[in-house]
Amino acid sequence: MTITIIGTGNMGQAIASLAAKGGHSVQLLGSSDIDTEVTGDIVVLAVPYSAVGEVIAQRGSSLADRVVVDITNPVDFATFDSLVVPSDSSATVEIASALPDSRVLKAFNTTFAGTLVSGTVGTVRTTVLIAGDDADAKSQLAAIVTAGGLDAVDAGSLSRAHELEALGFLQMTLAASEKITWTGGFGVIA
Amino acid sequence: MTITIIGTGNMGQAIASLAAKGGHSVQLLGSSDIDTEVTGDIVVLAVPYSAVGEVIAQRGSSLADRVVVDITNPVDFATFDSLVVPSDSSATVEIASALPDSRVLKAFNTTFAGTLVSGTVGTVRTTVLIAGDDADAKSQLAAIVTAGGLDAVDAGSLSRAHELEALGFLQMTLAASEKITWTGGFGVIA
Repeated sequence: MTITIIGTGNMGQAIASLAAKGGHSVQLLGSSDIDTEVTGDIVVLAVPYSAVGEVIAQRGSSLADRVVVDITNPVDFATFDSLVVPSDSSATVEIASALPDSRVLKAFNTTFAGTLVSGTVGTVRTTVLIAGDDADAKSQLAAIVTAGGLDAVDAGSLSRAHELEALGFLQMTLAASEKITWTGGFGVIA
Repeated sequence: MTITIIGTGNMGQAIASLAAKGGHSVQLLGSSDIDTEVTGDIVVLAVPYSAVGEVIAQRGSSLADRVVVDITNPVDFATFDSLVVPSDSSATVEIASALPDSRVLKAFNTTFAGTLVSGTVGTVRTTVLIAGDDADAKSQLAAIVTAGGLDAVDAGSLSRAHELEALGFLQMTLAASEKITWTGGFGVIA
């Protein structure tokens, strides 16, 4: 399987490493690769939420019929006190509305990049929480995560993206205020 | 210091044990103790969110000038798919509005009762996340938690109760769907 990752920041690189570790082909696209066609069965949007609209405008039609993974935490960075999406929605639900022909998942927004690379949150194995309405798409992504040596947990329907974004935001506020480090956070313990 | 706990369910009992372990006096009040006056400096509302309104109606005036701790997860149990509080608010903000003369905190809604009793989430020490606008009240509660052998983390202002309730709800959905156990959950790892 080929995984396309749009965005070459620390999260994009960490997810690329994870997928490669599991033996998958990885296509890593940066902003200068605008003329390169997406080839992945699964496409990870590893850009800030503020940049997602532009990616969809540029590549929306080529994302049809693919699994699209939203990893964003749509934090209002002006206040660091709320999200920029409607309070009864989520970035993922907004993206899914803009990509009606894609199977959109939420994942990777509750795992800091360092915990994807190290494989652990402190002493606990890193778990990627995945939400979405397409069970087959969730299974495909979970298989990539586990092949890369991490745990994956199905966190429910697309509407649970709201809770995952709240968790991701809370975790960022705890790290920014030095209550936790950027290599720690919320470990998922069975 | 005396801690009053209103509610004798598994959470009320677990919080009573925790406070007693730290050497504090505990007043544990059940529904038949309606004529007993609250004596605690800190009052924990350890009842379901649906019962909080009745407690406030009965005891609201005696809660003035006290620290009041809301531990609820205001889940819509009819659907188990959302909360019953407005999407831009939280149970804690609603309770604080109803108790303008109390210093209201959110805490204990992200720790299953079993993890308060055992002191651990899996192999990780249990951490109680505390949100509120009164720094002194948060410090008092954190001291009770740490005296009882658990960790406490200041999770920010009262508005972070929204995120804590999202986390608590998500954790309940994961346990109900057997992705985690009721002795596990989200460990807070520094």
